[in-house]
Amino acid sequence: MEISKPRGTRDFLPEEVAGRRSVESKLRDVVKRWGYGEIITPTFEELELFTLKSGEGIIGELYNFKDKGDREMTLRPELTAPVMRAYVNEMQSFPKPVKLFYFENCFRYERPQKGRFREFWQFGTELIGSAKPEADAEVIALAMNLLNAVGVKGDLNIGNLSVLRHLLSQVTTDLESQGKVMRIIDKMTKDPEEEKNLTALLAEMKAAPQLIEKIKAVILLTGKDGLAAVKKAREIAGPLPELDAFEKTLTLLSAYGINDYTVNFGVARGLDYYTGIVFEIYADGLGAQKQVCGGGSYKLISLFGGGDVVSTGFGIGFDRIMEICDKQVPKIPSIVLVSKPETQAESIKLANDLRKFVSVQTDIMGRNFKAQMEFANTIKADYVLIVGEKELESGLFSLKNMETGEQVSLNRDDLLNKFKN
Amino acid sequence: MEISKPRGTRDFLPEEVAGRRSVESKLRDVVKRWGYGEIITPTFEELELFTLKSGEGIIGELYNFKDKGDREMTLRPELTAPVMRAYVNEMQSFPKPVKLFYFENCFRYERPQKGRFREFWQFGTELIGSAKPEADAEVIALAMNLLNAVGVKGDLNIGNLSVLRHLLSQVTTDLESQGKVMRIIDKMTKDPEEEKNLTALLAEMKAAPQLIEKIKAVILLTGKDGLAAVKKAREIAGPLPELDAFEKTLTLLSAYGINDYTVNFGVARGLDYYTGIVFEIYADGLGAQKQVCGGGSYKLISLFGGGDVVSTGFGIGFDRIMEICDKQVPKIPSIVLVSKPETQAESIKLANDLRKFVSVQTDIMGRNFKAQMEFANTIKADYVLIVGEKELESGLFSLKNMETGEQVSLNRDDLLNKFKN
Repeated sequence: MEISKPRGTRDFLPEEVAGRRSVESKLRDVVKRWGYGEIITPTFEELELFTLKSGEGIIGELYNFKDKGDREMTLRPELTAPVMRAYVNEMQSFPKPVKLFYFENCFRYERPQKGRFREFWQFGTELIGSAKPEADAEVIALAMNLLNAVGVKGDLNIGNLSVLRHLLSQVTTDLESQGKVMRIIDKMTKDPEEEKNLTALLAEMKAAPQLIEKIKAVILLTGKDGLAAVKKAREIAGPLPELDAFEKTLTLLSAYGINDYTVNFGVARGLDYYTGIVFEIYADGLGAQKQVCGGGSYKLISLFGGGDVVSTGFGIGFDRIMEICDKQVPKIPSIVLVSKPETQAESIKLANDLRKFVSVQTDIMGRNFKAQMEFANTIKADYVLIVGEKELESGLFSLKNMETGEQVSLNRDDLLNKFKN
Repeated sequence: MEISKPRGTRDFLPEEVAGRRSVESKLRDVVKRWGYGEIITPTFEELELFTLKSGEGIIGELYNFKDKGDREMTLRPELTAPVMRAYVNEMQSFPKPVKLFYFENCFRYERPQKGRFREFWQFGTELIGSAKPEADAEVIALAMNLLNAVGVKGDLNIGNLSVLRHLLSQVTTDLESQGKVMRIIDKMTKDPEEEKNLTALLAEMKAAPQLIEKIKAVILLTGKDGLAAVKKAREIAGPLPELDAFEKTLTLLSAYGINDYTVNFGVARGLDYYTGIVFEIYADGLGAQKQVCGGGSYKLISLFGGGDVVSTGFGIGFDRIMEICDKQVPKIPSIVLVSKPETQAESIKLANDLRKFVSVQTDIMGRNFKAQMEFANTIKADYVLIVGEKELESGLFSLKNMETGEQVSLNRDDLLNKFKN
């Protein structure tokens, strides 16, 4: 009887893992040069951490369970709430801003379907402690830089929920009710038919028809000229200070070399906790699942028992970008050492030295000369090195380049020097 | 109300994570140069995968649960069984030997206690497809090389279960009953009092008194002269072919430069599935939890529905070695750019260029000049670069080394060249 992997999961074999690690490494390089430090939180959390404020969208798909002590736990669905929890528990005294990044697996429990797995990976950052436009601009620029570093070209869409929240606060100050409206707005970006539901819900909440029209106008307000869009938002919603800050953010983006984007006041995100700027990046070549990055600014910390601290962050869907990004793996040369039973010990000693510089395999199958050569061929080794009795006597080793077929004789020092460089 | 992390777990903050990633990276470098490729398996597996053959020791501590579909699942307690499952599912057609490594988190559900967490990390390898002494020697040598690469000195203990299994097969051929005996033998290494229980159990199984004496003699057979110990084992148990192979393994270890070890025929390991060679490495400075590595050869693949394939592997307790190993982190220089509102955009542009080479922070808090300087001090930045109006006019930027206090004036090109190298 063969045991299978669990439903909706996958194993990653060496070739694929090498590609993933190479992309991960490029992302790490970038984020460190922006001064962000890595955080690792537990794989599972208490269920309450996510039911408190993440919104219906995420709760329905949680991979939650009861542990042996009858506690309601869940495998984490995302990293923002855990990182904010860790901040409240352990980092409130750190100098601001606190700049964190993570690269971790997340989990969802839903009907398995093509390209959607129960375990998936997220790369993300959280910038904690600044409510300034400078913070918003840095976070958006960092997200774009990360994607560019791995060869992903994306369409940047930037919104700002403060306008919608300002208008909605005239309908209701109840955040839960505002959340309901926001979720319908989020659905509208995919399905314009949802507009009817929005009108009905707002009417039910006794919003004045004129206010409903304003809200709809904001949702549809979009344009490549960001400053012009902000100006129109002012005309609809009034001279909000948040719009001045938004204008500053857009101006700073230009200093980061980011001028090609769409301002879209209808971007609402699937999560309840965003308050100010929100952004999403879409990439081509991914079909309907084209969103590779999403983020914004939010105030989770006070909800988790900490102070009134503003954060801005984003998550990149690592599995999605792996489908379209540069996956070239930096490779060290590989050598197969071919020996006889009589020269086995000397072959191992040579391998010890060569392994300082290259990837080396010696025979561990008890194969004869011919079978060892065939193995080198099968695994597409870069070189074969013959370590026979003749070679050990003469001190000259025969190195064959398996790609070109070229063969050279080298003494031990020259051999090591060749690969040292 | 403050939400806490789950019982028995921990958050790793940036400084600690940097140390862990640096050690991880050294281990990866070594294992790649031995020709091993990384595998990633799901974080959770069906419970059955581990209850089938891992032994009582691991089952009692499993972090298992029922998923929403009422399936018995568990967070993985170790990686050998998952890797073998993945081999059976997906790698049986790969050229032999298949050389795999992993670096993953594992889980246990036990009463939380000091230094024992419910989530912990393992670095390990599995060499699949060779039953030769060459494979055993390579795996042991690789384990020692990995520990040496991160500055961990360990006492290597090597055993071989084929001798005990040969003698036990004269008592019973039932593997489950053999497992019971093996677990008592494993306990004997920590508590000599367990010898009474061993005698009682063997007597209950109707083993001849002479055979019981032989078994005890093998368990106590230990010595720094490996070949002499093998000779004594032959005298007790007879001329087993497994002992010839073991002798060969020890001879090959010498070619790997490994001559300082103890052969100990009483090493039984806590898991049921080992059949041939077994080894454990103990390090100083860890108190009672001194075992940093354990491994051996086993036949799990046929149990999981694959062919009769022998594997040899080991796991290194990553959290344990982190307590005693070299944790020096390769660091890139960090610079804080100090600007005024009027020079903010130019400061960001300079940051864009500098971030190709170093870690750069610009002000995102709206701080004045003095507060920006204080921030650089607080986070112990290596350099501060002033980007004021005067500097932009003259094209000369003032760079201060925060450690030495030394200050130099550089133009844009010289500044970039300084950090390029």
